[in-house]
Amino acid sequence: MASSEIEHLITALARLPGLGPRSARRAALFLIQKKQSALDPLLRALDAAAEAVTTCGICGNVDTRDPCGICADDRRDQTMLCVVESVADLWAMERSHAFKGLYHVLGGTLSAIDGVGPEDLNIPALVQRIKGDGIAEVILATNATHDGQSTAHYIAERLEGLGVTVSGLAHGVPVGGELDYLDEGTLTAALKARRDI
Amino acid sequence: MASSEIEHLITALARLPGLGPRSARRAALFLIQKKQSALDPLLRALDAAAEAVTTCGICGNVDTRDPCGICADDRRDQTMLCVVESVADLWAMERSHAFKGLYHVLGGTLSAIDGVGPEDLNIPALVQRIKGDGIAEVILATNATHDGQSTAHYIAERLEGLGVTVSGLAHGVPVGGELDYLDEGTLTAALKARRDI
Repeated sequence: MASSEIEHLITALARLPGLGPRSARRAALFLIQKKQSALDPLLRALDAAAEAVTTCGICGNVDTRDPCGICADDRRDQTMLCVVESVADLWAMERSHAFKGLYHVLGGTLSAIDGVGPEDLNIPALVQRIKGDGIAEVILATNATHDGQSTAHYIAERLEGLGVTVSGLAHGVPVGGELDYLDEGTLTAALKARRDI
Repeated sequence: MASSEIEHLITALARLPGLGPRSARRAALFLIQKKQSALDPLLRALDAAAEAVTTCGICGNVDTRDPCGICADDRRDQTMLCVVESVADLWAMERSHAFKGLYHVLGGTLSAIDGVGPEDLNIPALVQRIKGDGIAEVILATNATHDGQSTAHYIAERLEGLGVTVSGLAHGVPVGGELDYLDEGTLTAALKARRDI
């Protein structure tokens, strides 16, 4: 159907999350037909990212420097540490502009089925960090899934006796959410944690 | 939130059809975190495509050579010409393996609203090709949309008196399709064009 260069491009694009074979074909054609305005900028951006981007040795964030911009920013609250599963979650927290402390990226969740133990995640480094760094509060912001919550519980146990406050994100109704579309678990949690208005 | 290299990569990815801002972020993170297995192959594939891919001067297909592999293949039926709107449509026809002739890519449809006239499409070249090339039948395989069909009608008129048979794709029930989900237009067309079994 197409030359091997085009096939290779389709294959490489189809590996991206969110692009199936059909949309990868569309994207490849778009790039080929808009060489100046789409293909060349993407090529340059990938090249620059491949050159520059590295993983922060302290928190596990990706950035162009190590330590990353967040770890190196001394205006941030050095006593608060937010533990997240992935860099995507860190970015989500940053978009909220609600947290001004430091992060620690686990790189996944504990999972007996997939054979992921504490040493496969960034947990030993987390414990070391808390022992040394003057952290006062650890916010466990793992996902509200089964694996995320059991990972949070495991970490909370590991941190016992280290003299830090350990907290988790509140459950409740999402802002703008409609009750009719919420699951029972969320509604139960929101009701239990009801507040005076 | 992230360094400018990462931001640029997200912006370049978000321009792809099928990727919104959210999935572009996911894709960028995927690429950065899987440098060896995802970013480097995509970079090489884009580079190779940017180098090699060109547009066929005869039919408008994209390929690594000009004339393209289809135009240059003398085992294909040189008397049949299939007119399609886009290279994506050409690829779709090729995936069906049902057509063994040559193609002509219009590069769009006529559109009074968007100010697209015959000279903006590949139509003059099509007329020239039919006057010169020994084509016996032209299959107008534009989309079954309003614009696609009026473009087909316009081309059919332009080809009158040039001594070629002009045909169009049949309308009907898609293979595997359920009647309940079909629109009335398709059902009417399928009924009109019914066949003895």
